[in-house]
Amino acid sequence: MTRISNFDELVAQLSARQSVCRMAVVCGSDASTRSAVERAAEAGFVCPTFIDDNDVDAAAAAAVAMVRAGEADVIMKGLINTDNLLRAVLNKETGILPKGQVLTHITALEMPGMDRLLFCTDVAVLPQPTPEQRRCQIDYLLGLCRSMGIDEPRIGLVNCSEKVSEKHFPHTVDYRAIAAEAAEGRFGRCIIDGPLDLKTCFSAEALKKKGLTSPLEGRADAVVFPDIQAGNVFYKTVTLFCHARTAAVLAGPSVPVVLTSRGDNPDSKFYSIALACLNK
Amino acid sequence: MTRISNFDELVAQLSARQSVCRMAVVCGSDASTRSAVERAAEAGFVCPTFIDDNDVDAAAAAAVAMVRAGEADVIMKGLINTDNLLRAVLNKETGILPKGQVLTHITALEMPGMDRLLFCTDVAVLPQPTPEQRRCQIDYLLGLCRSMGIDEPRIGLVNCSEKVSEKHFPHTVDYRAIAAEAAEGRFGRCIIDGPLDLKTCFSAEALKKKGLTSPLEGRADAVVFPDIQAGNVFYKTVTLFCHARTAAVLAGPSVPVVLTSRGDNPDSKFYSIALACLNK
Repeated sequence: MTRISNFDELVAQLSARQSVCRMAVVCGSDASTRSAVERAAEAGFVCPTFIDDNDVDAAAAAAVAMVRAGEADVIMKGLINTDNLLRAVLNKETGILPKGQVLTHITALEMPGMDRLLFCTDVAVLPQPTPEQRRCQIDYLLGLCRSMGIDEPRIGLVNCSEKVSEKHFPHTVDYRAIAAEAAEGRFGRCIIDGPLDLKTCFSAEALKKKGLTSPLEGRADAVVFPDIQAGNVFYKTVTLFCHARTAAVLAGPSVPVVLTSRGDNPDSKFYSIALACLNK
Repeated sequence: MTRISNFDELVAQLSARQSVCRMAVVCGSDASTRSAVERAAEAGFVCPTFIDDNDVDAAAAAAVAMVRAGEADVIMKGLINTDNLLRAVLNKETGILPKGQVLTHITALEMPGMDRLLFCTDVAVLPQPTPEQRRCQIDYLLGLCRSMGIDEPRIGLVNCSEKVSEKHFPHTVDYRAIAAEAAEGRFGRCIIDGPLDLKTCFSAEALKKKGLTSPLEGRADAVVFPDIQAGNVFYKTVTLFCHARTAAVLAGPSVPVVLTSRGDNPDSKFYSIALACLNK
C-alpha cells in the first residue's frame, strides 16, 4: 500500500473505494457538522444517518445501538455534550468499549513544511495514562499508522529530557520498558524510543546537536505525550501558531468516534470523518 | 517607557544605554558562547569576564563570588554542565539564591505573525511548581514584562481546559485562587486569569468560539504552564515548527543567569544575554 502523506491523499483514497462508511451522526443538525458530513457524502465515502432527538441521551444510545447491531461503522458527535455521548459509549451493559480497551484520543496533523502526516496521543481525553493505558494508546497509534501505509511506524515517547528520572518523572521508567518491549517485538514491526524531547523525536539535527543517538533518527511518525497537559499544549500551539491542519478520532471503542469540538474549523471536521472511515 | 516589541528593539534599547552590564562567563571558551558574548560586547551593552578553569566547579564558584562581591551583574553558562553551575548558585552558604526565592526559567519568544514578544515559564527547570513556587514564577514573569515596558501585563494560567477540576488537575484550584488574588491587587497592576487553554490565552477568536469570556480577552503577554512537561513541549514545538526566535534566563538568584543549551542557535544565545542585561 502506498503511504498516505497528507489529508488530500487520504480523501482521494477513500473516495476511490467501492465501499462507503455507514456513519451515525448524533445531534448533527448544526450547520457546521452537517456541512462536513455532506462533504464526505459527496466525496463518496460516507453514508450518514442523522439521529436527532430532543433527549440527547436517547440519541446517543440509539447511535451506540446501531453499532452493536452492525448497522454503523463510525459514530460522529454533533451538538451534544461530550459527556452525554461518552456515557452511552462507555455504558458497561449497552456500550461499545470492549473489556481491556481504553478510551483515548488520536490526532493526525498536516504541518506546513513536513513531508508526511504526524500522529499523536492524547491531547484531549485521557488525563494521565497508566502504564497499561499507555500500551493501549501505542497499539491504537500503531494501528492508525499502519492503515496509513506506514510499514514500520516510528513512535517517540515524549518527555522534557532524554534522561530517565524515577523521582521527578516516573513515566520515563515505563518509557524505557516500552522501548525494550518494542525491540523484542511486543508491538509488531515498529520502532519505539524514549524518553526523548519533542524536538529530538522530529529532528535529526536536534538529535545530533544534543549528541544523542536514537533508533528513530529524528524521524518519528508519531508521539505519545506524558499526559493531557503536554498533549493539549502541543495541539493548541500547532493549530494557533503553526497553521497545522488536523483531524482527530477517539480510539478504543469497537468503532471510531469523531469528536470534533466547537473550536474546530470545517476542514478539521471533514478530515476527522475521513480519518475515522479509514479503518472501515 | 515605550514597550519593547521584539528582540531588535531590545538590543537597540540596551545599546543606547550609558551603562554596560558586567557579565561573568563560566567556561565560555567555546566558539558559540564566545561569539554571542562578543556580539553583545560589540553592541555595547556587555563587559564580559571570562572565567576558565580546568576545575569547572571552581570556575562556577568564582563567578558566584563575583556576584556576591558586587563585581558582576549577570552570570552566563558556557561549556559546563548545568548541574555544576547550579550547585554553586544554590549553595546555601556561598550561593546567590535569596531565601524564599525559587530557581525558575523564563523564556521570551518572538513568533512570526505576532506583534509583540510573548513570555512563558517554566520550560526547563522547575518540574512541578508548588502553589508558593507558582506565585514566585508569576512575580518574576511580571517583573520581566514590566521591564519590557508592559504597564499592565496579562498572564494566562494554562490548563488543558477552562474547567476547575480538583480531582484530575489540582493546580486548577490554585489557578482560581491566584486569579482572585490578582484581582485584589496581590501582584500589583496586572491581569491574571485561568484555567484557560493555551489557545484561549492568545486568541480572542478561540475564546469567542468556545463561548468564554476572560479579562485577558485572548491577548495574554505571558503564560504559566502547569508543569515542565507542558512547558517543554511548547518550547520545542514553537522552535521546531513555528520558526520562533527565543531568549531565556534563569530567574530567582540575585542576578539573572543565562543558561543556553547545546541545541540553541547563536541568535538565541545573544538574545538571552540581552534579556538578562535588561534588568541591570
